[in-house]
Amino acid sequence: MAWERRLEETLAEAWRRLVRGAADRRAASRHPVLATVAEDGAPAARVVVLRRADPGEGVLEVHTDAASAKAGEIAAEPRVALTVWEAKARLQIRVAAEAAPIEGAAREALWARVPEGARLAYGGTPAPGTVIAAPEDHAAEPVAARFLPLRLGVTEVETLHLGEDRHRRARFRRDRDWAGEWLAP
Amino acid sequence: MAWERRLEETLAEAWRRLVRGAADRRAASRHPVLATVAEDGAPAARVVVLRRADPGEGVLEVHTDAASAKAGEIAAEPRVALTVWEAKARLQIRVAAEAAPIEGAAREALWARVPEGARLAYGGTPAPGTVIAAPEDHAAEPVAARFLPLRLGVTEVETLHLGEDRHRRARFRRDRDWAGEWLAP
Repeated sequence: MAWERRLEETLAEAWRRLVRGAADRRAASRHPVLATVAEDGAPAARVVVLRRADPGEGVLEVHTDAASAKAGEIAAEPRVALTVWEAKARLQIRVAAEAAPIEGAAREALWARVPEGARLAYGGTPAPGTVIAAPEDHAAEPVAARFLPLRLGVTEVETLHLGEDRHRRARFRRDRDWAGEWLAP
Repeated sequence: MAWERRLEETLAEAWRRLVRGAADRRAASRHPVLATVAEDGAPAARVVVLRRADPGEGVLEVHTDAASAKAGEIAAEPRVALTVWEAKARLQIRVAAEAAPIEGAAREALWARVPEGARLAYGGTPAPGTVIAAPEDHAAEPVAARFLPLRLGVTEVETLHLGEDRHRRARFRRDRDWAGEWLAP
């Protein structure tokens, strides 16, 4: 029986895709869209790189620049939404999560593993989003203090599978111990 | 000179991608992520199908079911964010817009053009998001009154191009007559 017909296997498939995204640069789930709420109350969203997915803990991880707009948005409103569209599998994965900075020794260990070239994503002058006269007026330079790894504690996973026979939508919540339920699509 | 080095051409390229998405099922921009703010203040996001893109008016169009959660969210908070990741072009397009229902004769004309099979996306019992015992407990049936086309009046376009030499980020605002400015990436 195909995974999309059983709740437990549907959740497992969603996590399998997320785990693959964290490991495989070519996976669709490598580049989810992370939605936040901006200070003015409007939604904001951008593509991020998925760095880790842990089905056991129900945790995802992304890395950002502490000076970025999304870092400020998340500090003010930690609830985020992460969306993946796996076109080939006809599967949408919607994750609701609460984001929190990874700090201390865990943060240091992550920084130590960021390759030198990739460190350019954290730091740079002026800060992200500042108006500049030309692209050349931005100097990229790694600043360890600007490295902000975020732990996304997943509170809900919702899946939508566009099957040939019908669409199947399901929801899984942490506060129900990840027991699933079908939803009308 | 490549488009990503000039503001005006960067905006034109972003619209070209959006226009392609509205016409071509295989384009990355066919399936943007639409982010909204839910009633409880958390961000919500899902993949939508881009139905129209009009660079002259600065308008996008998507269609939804009037009984869907996003329809309610948009009625309460019309500001939305639409995100496209064009992997091959290494181009992210972020659109901020205000959504409004398309009504009256314009709505009727759009409905008349929805193919019969595609009409199943609007209607169905019970309403989207309702808990059901099994996927088979949802009956899809078109209901014209549930067809909700949305006009997204674009207020801002932000682009990020990951070039081999450097990243280039730019912002274009309606209230500045779409004049562009470079931003630190």
